[in-house]
Amino acid sequence: MSRGSSYDRHLTIFSPEGRLYQIEYAFKAVKSCGYTTIGVCGTDGVAFVTQLKAPDKLIDPASCSHIYSISPSVGMLTTGFPADARSIAQKARQEAAEFRFKFGYEMPCDVLAKWLADNNQVYTQHAYMRVMAVETMLIGINDDDEDNKKPMLYKVDPAGYYAGYHASCAGTKEIECTNWLEKKMKAYLGESKKPLSMDQAVRLGISALQSVLSEDFKASQLEVGVISCESSTFRKLSEDEIDDHLVAISERD
Amino acid sequence: MSRGSSYDRHLTIFSPEGRLYQIEYAFKAVKSCGYTTIGVCGTDGVAFVTQLKAPDKLIDPASCSHIYSISPSVGMLTTGFPADARSIAQKARQEAAEFRFKFGYEMPCDVLAKWLADNNQVYTQHAYMRVMAVETMLIGINDDDEDNKKPMLYKVDPAGYYAGYHASCAGTKEIECTNWLEKKMKAYLGESKKPLSMDQAVRLGISALQSVLSEDFKASQLEVGVISCESSTFRKLSEDEIDDHLVAISERD
Amino acid sequence: MSRGSSYDRHLTIFSPEGRLYQIEYAFKAVKSCGYTTIGVCGTDGVAFVTQLKAPDKLIDPASCSHIYSISPSVGMLTTGFPADARSIAQKARQEAAEFRFKFGYEMPCDVLAKWLADNNQVYTQHAYMRVMAVETMLIGINDDDEDNKKPMLYKVDPAGYYAGYHASCAGTKEIECTNWLEKKMKAYLGESKKPLSMDQAVRLGISALQSVLSEDFKASQLEVGVISCESSTFRKLSEDEIDDHLVAISERD
Amino acid sequence: MSRGSSYDRHLTIFSPEGRLYQIEYAFKAVKSCGYTTIGVCGTDGVAFVTQLKAPDKLIDPASCSHIYSISPSVGMLTTGFPADARSIAQKARQEAAEFRFKFGYEMPCDVLAKWLADNNQVYTQHAYMRVMAVETMLIGINDDDEDNKKPMLYKVDPAGYYAGYHASCAGTKEIECTNWLEKKMKAYLGESKKPLSMDQAVRLGISALQSVLSEDFKASQLEVGVISCESSTFRKLSEDEIDDHLVAISERD
Amino acid sequence: MSRGSSYDRHLTIFSPEGRLYQIEYAFKAVKSCGYTTIGVCGTDGVAFVTQLKAPDKLIDPASCSHIYSISPSVGMLTTGFPADARSIAQKARQEAAEFRFKFGYEMPCDVLAKWLADNNQVYTQHAYMRVMAVETMLIGINDDDEDNKKPMLYKVDPAGYYAGYHASCAGTKEIECTNWLEKKMKAYLGESKKPLSMDQAVRLGISALQSVLSEDFKASQLEVGVISCESSTFRKLSEDEIDDHLVAISERD
Amino acid sequence: MSRGSSYDRHLTIFSPEGRLYQIEYAFKAVKSCGYTTIGVCGTDGVAFVTQLKAPDKLIDPASCSHIYSISPSVGMLTTGFPADARSIAQKARQEAAEFRFKFGYEMPCDVLAKWLADNNQVYTQHAYMRVMAVETMLIGINDDDEDNKKPMLYKVDPAGYYAGYHASCAGTKEIECTNWLEKKMKAYLGESKKPLSMDQAVRLGISALQSVLSEDFKASQLEVGVISCESSTFRKLSEDEIDDHLVAISERD
Amino acid sequence: MSRGSSYDRHLTIFSPEGRLYQIEYAFKAVKSCGYTTIGVCGTDGVAFVTQLKAPDKLIDPASCSHIYSISPSVGMLTTGFPADARSIAQKARQEAAEFRFKFGYEMPCDVLAKWLADNNQVYTQHAYMRVMAVETMLIGINDDDEDNKKPMLYKVDPAGYYAGYHASCAGTKEIECTNWLEKKMKAYLGESKKPLSMDQAVRLGISALQSVLSEDFKASQLEVGVISCESSTFRKLSEDEIDDHLVAISERD
Repeated sequence: MSRGSSYDRHLTIFSPEGRLYQIEYAFKAVKSCGYTTIGVCGTDGVAFVTQLKAPDKLIDPASCSHIYSISPSVGMLTTGFPADARSIAQKARQEAAEFRFKFGYEMPCDVLAKWLADNNQVYTQHAYMRVMAVETMLIGINDDDEDNKKPMLYKVDPAGYYAGYHASCAGTKEIECTNWLEKKMKAYLGESKKPLSMDQAVRLGISALQSVLSEDFKASQLEVGVISCESSTFRKLSEDEIDDHLVAISERD
Repeated sequence: MSRGSSYDRHLTIFSPEGRLYQIEYAFKAVKSCGYTTIGVCGTDGVAFVTQLKAPDKLIDPASCSHIYSISPSVGMLTTGFPADARSIAQKARQEAAEFRFKFGYEMPCDVLAKWLADNNQVYTQHAYMRVMAVETMLIGINDDDEDNKKPMLYKVDPAGYYAGYHASCAGTKEIECTNWLEKKMKAYLGESKKPLSMDQAVRLGISALQSVLSEDFKASQLEVGVISCESSTFRKLSEDEIDDHLVAISERD
Repeated sequence: MSRGSSYDRHLTIFSPEGRLYQIEYAFKAVKSCGYTTIGVCGTDGVAFVTQLKAPDKLIDPASCSHIYSISPSVGMLTTGFPADARSIAQKARQEAAEFRFKFGYEMPCDVLAKWLADNNQVYTQHAYMRVMAVETMLIGINDDDEDNKKPMLYKVDPAGYYAGYHASCAGTKEIECTNWLEKKMKAYLGESKKPLSMDQAVRLGISALQSVLSEDFKASQLEVGVISCESSTFRKLSEDEIDDHLVAISERD
Repeated sequence: MSRGSSYDRHLTIFSPEGRLYQIEYAFKAVKSCGYTTIGVCGTDGVAFVTQLKAPDKLIDPASCSHIYSISPSVGMLTTGFPADARSIAQKARQEAAEFRFKFGYEMPCDVLAKWLADNNQVYTQHAYMRVMAVETMLIGINDDDEDNKKPMLYKVDPAGYYAGYHASCAGTKEIECTNWLEKKMKAYLGESKKPLSMDQAVRLGISALQSVLSEDFKASQLEVGVISCESSTFRKLSEDEIDDHLVAISERD
Repeated sequence: MSRGSSYDRHLTIFSPEGRLYQIEYAFKAVKSCGYTTIGVCGTDGVAFVTQLKAPDKLIDPASCSHIYSISPSVGMLTTGFPADARSIAQKARQEAAEFRFKFGYEMPCDVLAKWLADNNQVYTQHAYMRVMAVETMLIGINDDDEDNKKPMLYKVDPAGYYAGYHASCAGTKEIECTNWLEKKMKAYLGESKKPLSMDQAVRLGISALQSVLSEDFKASQLEVGVISCESSTFRKLSEDEIDDHLVAISERD
Repeated sequence: MSRGSSYDRHLTIFSPEGRLYQIEYAFKAVKSCGYTTIGVCGTDGVAFVTQLKAPDKLIDPASCSHIYSISPSVGMLTTGFPADARSIAQKARQEAAEFRFKFGYEMPCDVLAKWLADNNQVYTQHAYMRVMAVETMLIGINDDDEDNKKPMLYKVDPAGYYAGYHASCAGTKEIECTNWLEKKMKAYLGESKKPLSMDQAVRLGISALQSVLSEDFKASQLEVGVISCESSTFRKLSEDEIDDHLVAISERD
Repeated sequence: MSRGSSYDRHLTIFSPEGRLYQIEYAFKAVKSCGYTTIGVCGTDGVAFVTQLKAPDKLIDPASCSHIYSISPSVGMLTTGFPADARSIAQKARQEAAEFRFKFGYEMPCDVLAKWLADNNQVYTQHAYMRVMAVETMLIGINDDDEDNKKPMLYKVDPAGYYAGYHASCAGTKEIECTNWLEKKMKAYLGESKKPLSMDQAVRLGISALQSVLSEDFKASQLEVGVISCESSTFRKLSEDEIDDHLVAISERD
């Protein structure tokens, strides 16, 4: 195959077409993680939704969570190699704690996203380490303007790229899921956009999973993390709360 | 074979499918260790069971133990290269001792598991060291809530992944053993779960070994490590105690 | 193909023809970024124009900006890998801040261009890092002579070459765009040159994009950064201001 | 041959079957040393027996000894590359001296074995050094309990594995010798074990060499090192003492 | 081709014929720069002449200069990779400034040439950096003897060789140009040599370019740097001055 | 040939048979040095004999000596690469001087041999340096017991092995020479050994050279170094002294 | 060709025959330098003779000298890569200056030769630098014994070997020249040697060049460096002095 003799075996070597193959393979590693993750940014809050799927039945499902609380006001959702994910979460927590200590206020979500992206970019430029096989979503509240707080959703990829999103997804069914989200989010974007409450955002995320994976989830099979403009505090929903959302979705249909 | 020219010879190179072959080969190294190890988490205690098998008859069997006491309240069971296993146990003991010195209380089992997983993840990301060919189980008691102590069982793999388990196994017959455990543990999991005493947990582990390996073990051919919620102290059972369990199993049958 | 066995896989190895292939491939990486960027230097100001194109619809377009404010008086426009671009912008800001701190006045645009070029050259000479896959344009005002301020436009490439330009472009349609610009700029160059106001420069840039890409842009699909001799302050135009320019262009036609 | 292209040429690379070939080759290097070494643990003492064979007749046989006194109470017997062996003995002596200085009592034999194994394990995990082509036996007396001193025999291999042995051997005829020892030692192991005096242990070792190599040794062709529970002091037997043992063996036959 | 398997891909490896191919390829890289540079040493001054050719029309020609003022009394003319050239000029300026600071007088041209040659030699001996693809000419005045000042012209090549020249050239048409210069310089060399004024040296250089490249240059297409014994100060000629020389040449013909 | 693809090109890689090829090749390098060296240990002194052979006639033969005085009481004879030999002699002298300074008495010959062997062993274990292509003989007097001084002869090889010898040789005709020496030395070894005076040792060495190389040497073609128990001082014999020995040998025949 | 797959591409790898190819290739690099150098040691002085040949006619011949004055009393003549030669001369000067500073007298010629040889040997043993492609001759006066001063001539090769010579040569026609010198020097060597004045030594060297290269040299095409026992000061002969020697030679013929 024409992938070329060995361009794809060195982290820091461009192929004749100007591509860095190792980074592209890392993206494949993310996609083959076996689950799908979704983030949706509403008007008064932002939410993560993902499957909670233990690799085997004897595992304590709580050990398989993909959602990490980085600081009281920032949540992280990781997709990819679980060991890399934990390592990233660990470093992000430390960075956030040092930020708070140094500057006296919580590290904002966008600053953390930038820091994480910088970190990842460095791995793509040096020869002695592999890139992290993890895509990371971060949520938080922009409260620079007390009267007009705005929820934020960022995604950072293994190449060190990050961007703000209205909604995003990662993992196994990323392409199908992106299409579904683009269709459904249309109403809430653009100039004539409708408001999208945090609860609606949660349900949108769950519906996306249900529709893309053609599966009916039990509350125990889902993980949801939210942060509302009101509280500015990240928390994971309890199984009961998720169940309420599932009921609401099925009633709406 | 299509495993690809040399993707599998560099620790930190992704294959075009996004796989890190060296980590997968390390798992094979674990599986080819020649024995099977089992951990079972009960309601009031948690237990390790493993074969005690000297490579040759002249060896002092006590030298072949796979069970290490890391601190008074944490036990470790290793599966894989014996030299790597000892090196891990050594480092874990040191870490636990420093923790106790620094914070004034014993290092909890889950913190140790996380520390160990972090350590292993680092080996997968750098080019200059191989990963450890060892899967490690850790047991301890979560006594944050004095009135509701809970036994804990963690498994850490060479890739740096760790999770809490209700029951787990590793080594030569891992797949068969996992199936057997899943079947038998059903009754003790889920909402309508029955309580599982520590003694039952020990017997479950021994039965699993007997059934998967189709072998009748003498007490001297087994190693068992337990920690009960009551004592919060890790200890290995004596040969007599193991014999009592063997008798109880055969009587039950 | 005759590109030669492996001359093109080592950063610091000359081919028998005296070429450094990896640098040439990095240029290809820049060209395959998918968008076109333009800089035009007028008589009383200088402007950047580029497409603002989110990779997918769910992305917040503000996250995809290619224009960075490095200091109050220097703007940067990057073309290439977004993660490399951000990393360069980050370092440039830091350098500019340190310059201001050390010398008490803003870092001039040409000094910054030289510093950035030096940085890039170093990557081409060492074996352990890849070159940055980014072409960078910088604009600023030369105010050494208070009465005769002159706008400046510099472009720095991945090989560490930099030069001052009357007008320049980079990215996907670089060759077509250069031809278009050369034709249109003739009137404003040479001895009998006509003056070119900053507003004209902006419109020239937009027209170049429209004509080369054969596309009609909405204001929200463009990014424009300007700096005038009068204010000596870099700023990005608002969507309304861009719209005014678009109207002016269409009326002129 | 299927040993695989290059899995066996990198110290720290697992083969697809999870093997580390370089370690296995190091074992072969040990086996091709040209002599056989034996250690036998008795009830009141422990002994080493090995051939003393100068590579050529002009060499001073005393230079070819494989037995080293590490501290007054620990003896070492090495099998493999002589230069590696000397280097290990040198380091062990230094470690033992530092231990005595730091803790005020002699370094016990098992602690030294563990230290040596740790050392060897490290060589298997790093890429920049080869493993030591030496198997090391260590003997000493466990005198934790003054009234019940117990002789100890440890073997440390190049992979960093160590274990306590009732009897062990290494070198050219390792397999045949192990079989011979297993047969003869049966009587002294298990529950109904007979006591085995140190002198008997020495003669068992000599007989093993004679039988496996089908050779009649002169006292000058053998080296014997012993340590008894009574004296707790390691010493090498004189030629006369070895001769006495040889006479005793031939008389017994 | 027989250039040999891989002798030419390692900086510091001799081929069986005793050649260092990478250095030879670096010379090719210099020759493929696309322009020709000339230095001529007269009796009362010394001059550089080179083409001033912008790669495209939109570039500010002043950015493409190959002539650098290193200190008030030393000028540098570079041929080869522009980014390497700038890097060399930068370092030379720093070195010259430090020399002046340390010793209290300007760094003489020959000392600088030696320093630069030493620098280049080091790159040919180490494995981790490539050699600089630049040939450098340096001019200055030797004023050790106040009454008999002598102009100096040095050329330093990528291999670290340097020498004093009566006249020299580098770049695309180096061979043709050397021949032309040898023929014309004959009259000014040897024992019966005629004096050659600095102005004549400039015109000789320009004529060489015109004749070798078969092109009529405009003043704006040339760069000329001179230093006379009288002033001992390096300066670039203005466009008007160059024009005067062009007129003088055409009138002479 | 089956020497195996590349096992022999890495210093620290074992071949599948457990061999380290690079060390074996270094021994070949020693053997191809073109001359033969001999050491013979007598009862009251020890001697070196070697050819003194200038590579060409214009060379000052004194420059080609293979015998070095390391300290007043230790002599060294090197066989192999002359530059490596000198480097070893240099380091040994420094080590001996530091020993004398630190401990107040001359470094004994056996301690120096051990130190040198340790040094060589290190080169075989690390990847970044080649082993020394030199075999070294050392002579001295063991004067621990004033009344029973004993001459010592040690040989250290490139692999880091060293041993005491009654007589030894190295270089081109090593095998033939060893055979000759074994035959002639028989009378002086074993239990019924005859005494061997230092002068006899010198003549034995010279005869060995004459017989093995089938050549009649002139005094100027030989080098002899001796140290007697009486003086404990190393010295080289003068040409006249060597001549006396040659005469004695021819008269004896 | 059988030079072997890749033994010749690694500095520090022995071939199966025990050769270090890279060092042999470096000798070829010296031989291909294009000129011949000669040193002749007389009774009351010692001389260097070499061709002074500028690579092209425009070069200042003084720049092409191969003779360096290292200290007032030591001269150096280099053959090989000019940039390496200069680098060696530079380092030697520094070493000599430090020696004089430290010890209060000039560094003797033989000490310098040893230091240089040590330096070169190190390059052959490490993997990260190439060896120097230069053969170096050094001349000086041994004035340890005031009444019997002796001229010295040393040659140091790239492998780190050095020796004293009566006469020596290096470069393109080394073999022919050595033969010529051996024939002519016979009369001045051995026991019945005739005295050879320094002037005769100079003329011998010139004659050697003339005869080996079959060329008649002009004084300006030769370089001669001498040091006499009387003055103990190294100096280069002027063109007139060389001319006198040329006349003397032609008259003698």
